[in-house]
Amino acid sequence: MKLTIGLDFGTLSVRAVLVDISSGEIIASSVSKYRNAVMDSYLVNGIKLPNDYALQNALDYIESMETVINKITSNNTINNKDIIGIGVDFTASTILPMKADGTPLSALSKYENNPHAYSKLWKHHSAEKQAVRISELAIKSEAPWIKRYGNKISSEWMLPKVLEILEEDLKLFNETDYFVEAGDFITYYLTKSFKRSSCQAGYKGIWHSKSGYPKDEYLVKLNKKLKDIYNTKLSGDILPIGKKSGRLTSELANKYGLKQIPVSVSVIDAHVAAPACQAVNSGDMLMIIGTSSCDIVLSEKEVNIPGIQGVVKDGAIPNLFAYESGQPAVGDIFSWYIENHLPSGYYAYAKGNNQNIYQYMEDRIKLIPKTKPRLLALDWWNGNRSVLVDPDLSGILVGYNLQTTPEDIYRALIEATAFGKRVTIEAYESNGIEVKRLIACGGLATKNKYLLQCYANILKRPVFFTEEEYAPALGAAIFGALAAKDNGGYSSIEVASKYMSKLVEEPILPNKDFNYDELFKMYIELHDYFGKHSKLMKKLKLLQ
Amino acid sequence: MKLTIGLDFGTLSVRAVLVDISSGEIIASSVSKYRNAVMDSYLVNGIKLPNDYALQNALDYIESMETVINKITSNNTINNKDIIGIGVDFTASTILPMKADGTPLSALSKYENNPHAYSKLWKHHSAEKQAVRISELAIKSEAPWIKRYGNKISSEWMLPKVLEILEEDLKLFNETDYFVEAGDFITYYLTKSFKRSSCQAGYKGIWHSKSGYPKDEYLVKLNKKLKDIYNTKLSGDILPIGKKSGRLTSELANKYGLKQIPVSVSVIDAHVAAPACQAVNSGDMLMIIGTSSCDIVLSEKEVNIPGIQGVVKDGAIPNLFAYESGQPAVGDIFSWYIENHLPSGYYAYAKGNNQNIYQYMEDRIKLIPKTKPRLLALDWWNGNRSVLVDPDLSGILVGYNLQTTPEDIYRALIEATAFGKRVTIEAYESNGIEVKRLIACGGLATKNKYLLQCYANILKRPVFFTEEEYAPALGAAIFGALAAKDNGGYSSIEVASKYMSKLVEEPILPNKDFNYDELFKMYIELHDYFGKHSKLMKKLKLLQ
Repeated sequence: MKLTIGLDFGTLSVRAVLVDISSGEIIASSVSKYRNAVMDSYLVNGIKLPNDYALQNALDYIESMETVINKITSNNTINNKDIIGIGVDFTASTILPMKADGTPLSALSKYENNPHAYSKLWKHHSAEKQAVRISELAIKSEAPWIKRYGNKISSEWMLPKVLEILEEDLKLFNETDYFVEAGDFITYYLTKSFKRSSCQAGYKGIWHSKSGYPKDEYLVKLNKKLKDIYNTKLSGDILPIGKKSGRLTSELANKYGLKQIPVSVSVIDAHVAAPACQAVNSGDMLMIIGTSSCDIVLSEKEVNIPGIQGVVKDGAIPNLFAYESGQPAVGDIFSWYIENHLPSGYYAYAKGNNQNIYQYMEDRIKLIPKTKPRLLALDWWNGNRSVLVDPDLSGILVGYNLQTTPEDIYRALIEATAFGKRVTIEAYESNGIEVKRLIACGGLATKNKYLLQCYANILKRPVFFTEEEYAPALGAAIFGALAAKDNGGYSSIEVASKYMSKLVEEPILPNKDFNYDELFKMYIELHDYFGKHSKLMKKLKLLQ
Repeated sequence: MKLTIGLDFGTLSVRAVLVDISSGEIIASSVSKYRNAVMDSYLVNGIKLPNDYALQNALDYIESMETVINKITSNNTINNKDIIGIGVDFTASTILPMKADGTPLSALSKYENNPHAYSKLWKHHSAEKQAVRISELAIKSEAPWIKRYGNKISSEWMLPKVLEILEEDLKLFNETDYFVEAGDFITYYLTKSFKRSSCQAGYKGIWHSKSGYPKDEYLVKLNKKLKDIYNTKLSGDILPIGKKSGRLTSELANKYGLKQIPVSVSVIDAHVAAPACQAVNSGDMLMIIGTSSCDIVLSEKEVNIPGIQGVVKDGAIPNLFAYESGQPAVGDIFSWYIENHLPSGYYAYAKGNNQNIYQYMEDRIKLIPKTKPRLLALDWWNGNRSVLVDPDLSGILVGYNLQTTPEDIYRALIEATAFGKRVTIEAYESNGIEVKRLIACGGLATKNKYLLQCYANILKRPVFFTEEEYAPALGAAIFGALAAKDNGGYSSIEVASKYMSKLVEEPILPNKDFNYDELFKMYIELHDYFGKHSKLMKKLKLLQ
């Protein structure tokens, strides 16, 4: 028996799974919440934080990780000697300053009251002004890399967060040896071998496998002190995902009761799910459908696609380009509606039927008379990234009448998110990137068959899906098996995925219930009017 | 002391009020529901009715009327000899076939099982195909009157309902001596003097004070048997409102314990409210705001205004032209939202605060942060009559985001109905009909101060309003006082209105809370796009 550990670091907790690499069976699973969760109002010691801050204590990651590793390795039915590797994924972009020996600056007593010394979670948004300057200067100076990111660097990413510290706390900046993604911080902690991941560097670090990082010529225009930063505080070997970052140190191996097994390069928590769902081939599109949606499209080709967030070689699957796109709200729209806008009677009925409210709503949708006019929505409740890339756009619903019911509205919302996905797929295909196979995973895909059927009908393709709730953790375990290729693991991701992935065999096929082509044309009319021709949504947002 | 009786015949009941003509004080009031209410599925005797039928038994009107007259005249504190006149209004267009002596055909035993013998309520909509033919032929043959009605004759009106009987039951048609509006049926019953009302003939009967009725040349193209119909089954003196139709017969005077007092010409139940709210002068606009809204604009001038439903001399106030416009859903939109789309928590909070839910929602609107982006709606939940006249249009809401609350939506719905009103007012003014003074009445105006403030701000005018719930019944009593001008009543409506009307002295003034001009521009953008340029709403309605 051969086993790997998958460590899936999320926003609030880390999950560990112990997986049989011959079958993908999850033998044990454990979750531990971070002690200080997210600090967005006060620092641990009661210091008030500015707006838009979202900090974490990097030591919490380690504490929780050691808790869950201990849990899953204390299983009497397995022999810990069978554990051959560890894979790591981390929610990105989460950035922290550390010393060369791996100590987070927040762990030094002299910095314990300094917010900038802490880990800045992806949703720490206070570097917005730095992000705007970075993007504007890149566009102005025609930096070639800005197009790869749809002409916009997010405040969530590495460079804005580093620049924020540089400009607000030069002393702390100077004392930092490395700014790191938390995923790379973890693999360094486990192995004492400092490697950066191609996945995080590519999507969040403005790095490209051939052309590398932004040049000093650009950087010094942003701030003179950024000169040479990619050779100093942002330096470090970048390894493609699928490789090992190193081996577990002897100290930790002893502590955990494991051998000095290989540890993977870290992967972003979305992208890591691809091999767990058999999305490993050129032409596969993994749709991670949760509160928002994230698509990973795999291809052998690299092209620029307007409105697509980024494309990174070795970004999700070794040796392939991984394109990232998505919608900034999907499940969030549904829960916004269901939790805040549904009449009380519906909850009572669902309870009476012993159904959860989402299932109950799907049943009601099925009872809508076929002759009843549909509503049409634009799924822009949190702006648009598919493919207009405009956070100032907003949601719309057309077709209300006095007979409109909550299920009419809910159906229109579900359909709108599928139409948004169809726009994305058409953008890929019209730029020469084929989308041959759709694979759905994520919270909504595992639970919501009505949604998947709706997607199959609107996207006019079979939708493969996984019912595995822990697909990211399973994906991490797969990368653990790849890292362990010389230790009894797998040497190719296709093979690892074949044995360890969890995909339901029969996809959901498009049916003839409703021909969506006309409705999609209307969606495009609305989309182009409000997204391209009219300024109404922007004016509405600014009006006071 | 001088008193008049106002009889207000609604859809389900009649209300009688006894009013002191020196003060407008309502001394007594009584309501009686019609015994058979509305028959829309089965006739009294169990006969199944076709779709779109809405019948009533005309004898129920009389039974209920006599009940309420008896109630309000059995008051020990008044002397029935002080009652000097009776005024009548009736919901229109409600049509019935009768014999020359005033007997409804449904009261003849040989017709008691024949649906066509019964009174057809305004919402009896089965004459739609006749209405379409009437309109199309009028447009094709360039009949001059069709423009007065916005190029559309409604299936609710007299001629379609008569044509329906002619084409479906020729025998009954032939045995009918007169087709009458139920309002005229009542005054005939009370006085045995058969008069038709200028108000009903003008708005619902295709009659004009100068050019009269449609000509035979047109009618015979519709159906040969309509030849001469306006000299036979639709004949009858047309009297301007404000006149008396006759005096109470001696038989009824004895029965009711009254003198043979004058009875008014009947008035439509909307228009009758005008003098009760002091809307008696050229430039006054009465906004009757209830489930739908109806505007009466008074003017000395007659012009054609595209999108305005009709203009009738003596239509609401003697000697003035009364223009009618309106919105097919106002309160209906609010109750659609509040009753079917509000989360349960809101009801619980309202109950906890001892507030009704509408009041509670207004309080929540007031707590919306000023910096929060607004939503924008088109108030077309039941089509548009202000001034696009298109029943296939539907409602829209733009500007949703994940922070959108029910009160954001509710505010946008209220504002949208005010924007619809502003479009209407601009149509009047751009065609040379001044709107100098706004007066609100109806269910929402009496209860909803937030709505009136919103209207004042958006319409940029003071909004006068009445808190009198029974404004139509009071209006009927005013017309009773006019009918009794030779019996101690009033000789002019201005004077009658001055003494008897109920208007709150201080209007609601526009305030500076929010400048709606920009938002109204956006409303117009949406209005013109969906109402004029795009076919999307029509396509959406037809899509199956």
